[in-house]
Amino acid sequence: MSNKNKRTELYELGEFRLIDRLTDPFKKNQPTTIMGVGDDAAVIDAGNKHIVITTDLLLEGIHFDLTYFPLKHLGYKSVVVNLSDVYAMNATPTQITVSLGISKRLCVEDLEEFYAGVKLACEKYNVDLVGGDTSASMTGFTISVTAIGEAPKGKLVFRSGAKVNDLICVTGNLGAAYMGLQLLEREKKIFQSTSGTKPDLTGHEYILERMLKPEAQVGLLTQLNEKGIKPTSMIDISDGLSSELLHICKNSKVGCRVYLEKIPIDQEASNMAAEFGIEPTIAALNGGEDYELLFTVPLNNLEKVSSIKGISVIGHITDENAGAYLVPENGDDIKIVAQGWNSLKKE
Amino acid sequence: MSNKNKRTELYELGEFRLIDRLTDPFKKNQPTTIMGVGDDAAVIDAGNKHIVITTDLLLEGIHFDLTYFPLKHLGYKSVVVNLSDVYAMNATPTQITVSLGISKRLCVEDLEEFYAGVKLACEKYNVDLVGGDTSASMTGFTISVTAIGEAPKGKLVFRSGAKVNDLICVTGNLGAAYMGLQLLEREKKIFQSTSGTKPDLTGHEYILERMLKPEAQVGLLTQLNEKGIKPTSMIDISDGLSSELLHICKNSKVGCRVYLEKIPIDQEASNMAAEFGIEPTIAALNGGEDYELLFTVPLNNLEKVSSIKGISVIGHITDENAGAYLVPENGDDIKIVAQGWNSLKKE
Repeated sequence: MSNKNKRTELYELGEFRLIDRLTDPFKKNQPTTIMGVGDDAAVIDAGNKHIVITTDLLLEGIHFDLTYFPLKHLGYKSVVVNLSDVYAMNATPTQITVSLGISKRLCVEDLEEFYAGVKLACEKYNVDLVGGDTSASMTGFTISVTAIGEAPKGKLVFRSGAKVNDLICVTGNLGAAYMGLQLLEREKKIFQSTSGTKPDLTGHEYILERMLKPEAQVGLLTQLNEKGIKPTSMIDISDGLSSELLHICKNSKVGCRVYLEKIPIDQEASNMAAEFGIEPTIAALNGGEDYELLFTVPLNNLEKVSSIKGISVIGHITDENAGAYLVPENGDDIKIVAQGWNSLKKE
Repeated sequence: MSNKNKRTELYELGEFRLIDRLTDPFKKNQPTTIMGVGDDAAVIDAGNKHIVITTDLLLEGIHFDLTYFPLKHLGYKSVVVNLSDVYAMNATPTQITVSLGISKRLCVEDLEEFYAGVKLACEKYNVDLVGGDTSASMTGFTISVTAIGEAPKGKLVFRSGAKVNDLICVTGNLGAAYMGLQLLEREKKIFQSTSGTKPDLTGHEYILERMLKPEAQVGLLTQLNEKGIKPTSMIDISDGLSSELLHICKNSKVGCRVYLEKIPIDQEASNMAAEFGIEPTIAALNGGEDYELLFTVPLNNLEKVSSIKGISVIGHITDENAGAYLVPENGDDIKIVAQGWNSLKKE
């Protein structure tokens, strides 16, 4: 531990300011480094193409609870959340590595379940498992996945390319994974307090699948490419819409106006939000784990992009000085403040 | 957890058989995947060059003890152990990603210490920090580093190329890191049982540095390249000489004869081994964490390779049927059995 007198707690900074503070002193030395820290993936110049690299750490007790998370689903999701970052660069994933810290509670058959999920994801998204590291863990189950992807030069999309008047678009719907998590947490508590009660999860298959077995949005991305639409900026929605909008605004040096009633929310997620007394848009804005894509396109793509089923236009980009705002149907504009899921927060 | 009846404990398989069992079902689908699981790094065809990728997980309580491991050293070592894998492919490291699971005990200033070590390693080995992931950890400090490197096509060296009659060579010396660890563990116990006693580490700087701040063997590799020697096979010594010899033999389908008295051991390590009543060659064979390079070269390179200070010729490759043996000065040959550091062993 540090011997210095000053002690700044992590929650005082939060995840993104912490990363800035820790990585700012680093200089770029390699000519092949095109993009370092600060986008969905790092970008390396490989001569005749770009290679992207992204990595995610999933820790037991923070990112998943083995009480209700089937290991096969966990293996699948561990891969998909990384591939989602590759797609968010408009790149194609090609390889992954999977490293595991294995707690004593897990046996070989458990790990086979986990790898069955990894394999399913590899087959579905056509990527190869090419390495990793395996170790015992004194504590919880630790998963570290790195995904590699590629793109022809000129194809990549960064967080930094949004221009004033661009349309803000989102794939699929938002908030469902968060409502699935709330349901799982509630049923876990009921199960633990009333022994023998079977969790009641019927009728909630969609929101549970969104939490436990998310997919990466390759299909809609392919449709965009086929229609000749290249987003000006893109990011995957892992921390919640608010947080990702602010990333786009900060990196592109722009503002935004997003219309609350345009945010796509699934009916099942909306019903569950009502059951919990949560405003569905709050789940969409701050819930996270949706793995949908948030992107911007030039205004003249309105017709083309609107014709793709599963893509919603939710707002537009404004001048940086105009700030980042949510616009309700009635009432005053709401300034967007990041409240995305932040594992470093104070308890 | 698995619902099946059978429960195979991890220690029944050990790390390498476990990895084989988990990864065997995976097929290679991507044409750019040249080498997957089974060498120091994965290899990707990037068109006009090869890109290598390797990853290591370091977990508190398993791989390091913060009682005596300064965070700056830990940051440095976390990078170097990965770069060592890149060099073991005869490639040049270019970028790294660093992911951290941060326990509540650590504050921002602690992490700055850690990153100061990461930065030092990046500068020394000329690599860029290009990404990572940061999260809270409910339990111990978790470090996952991925290193990327590159090599012109035809330059990479695999574990699988050793041929009968090749010379077996090793850089530097072996067993010192293990003796450094033994010393640290002893002084920790004394410190904990007799409050106020200051650990006595003077005169042991070399073995401590080998444990706490190892270097990757790029200098000797450069000399080999300059002399026009391309190893036929290579691996870095992270688990101990025995384990790595068996990897070379298995992957190259050969046997080996290694002469015990030829194994290079530093005097300070040898003295400390004597203090602990440990045979120094046992520390070299099974201790691990040396991050030296074990490699083979054709027999006609004997003169050239012997002329490089810091490289020892310790034996030669034999036919597969002859098996893998250690040869003592007096007495019978000893069959090599992997006893490398195995974090999955039963306690």
